[in-house]
Amino acid sequence: MEPTEAETYDVRPIGRVESELVDPAEAPRQGHLGAPTAWLVIDADVREGIRDLRPGQEILVLTWLHRGRRDELSTQPGDDPTGPERGVFSTRSPARPNPIGLHRVTIVAVAEGRLQVEPLEAIDGTPLVDIKPVIRSDEG
Amino acid sequence: MEPTEAETYDVRPIGRVESELVDPAEAPRQGHLGAPTAWLVIDADVREGIRDLRPGQEILVLTWLHRGRRDELSTQPGDDPTGPERGVFSTRSPARPNPIGLHRVTIVAVAEGRLQVEPLEAIDGTPLVDIKPVIRSDEG
Repeated sequence: MEPTEAETYDVRPIGRVESELVDPAEAPRQGHLGAPTAWLVIDADVREGIRDLRPGQEILVLTWLHRGRRDELSTQPGDDPTGPERGVFSTRSPARPNPIGLHRVTIVAVAEGRLQVEPLEAIDGTPLVDIKPVIRSDEG
Repeated sequence: MEPTEAETYDVRPIGRVESELVDPAEAPRQGHLGAPTAWLVIDADVREGIRDLRPGQEILVLTWLHRGRRDELSTQPGDDPTGPERGVFSTRSPARPNPIGLHRVTIVAVAEGRLQVEPLEAIDGTPLVDIKPVIRSDEG
């Protein structure tokens, strides 16, 4: 089928990141590069969805990187700052057509409507859009 | 900070899945459960973003599972059909508040504006929202 470009879809945040990271310039590019522990604060209307999440579990957190530009199709990759620009879909740049961030983290604590996770490089206030369990096909 | 629930964000598809899978009832739940090879057809206006993708590379494909319900917070997990319902964020159910699908695939061929990948369990016509390279922190 031919692609049609007319429709868009609504992402409705399910919560927010609460983190000591407030300056995007100081956030590591990826969690494994020295990111802190942070809280995922889940909105009351979808809180039931996290009821089975427990400390020790690994999850994938999807965020909306709301500060990123959406019109960049080539970019300087953070892991190769002296190399050539690359097509954005070959990078994890936050500036991309749909600025969805993907973060693999471990749950370290659970409280009412909140999950403490690490490591998370997203800054304070970043909207959360989804949480998924890690499954076999993510492992390669 | 307190979450605010007012704002939403626009997801704009970057292309479409072209697949022999047309019936959601016949699609496997996950790619590793016997999904076919499929094409990712990228819209002309963002095609530059895939210019550095090559056969053999592993990528994460994010889709918008546009047929899913968005109001389910508990669900019967597909990997445990006789067990109890689980909070949706502990499952990979396509019915979730933001129905974003995450698929780890290998590129098997590249053509003008298209990538052939496998295995992909998304059905024909599924909107594509992002493509990311697999990186170390995805591997665990």
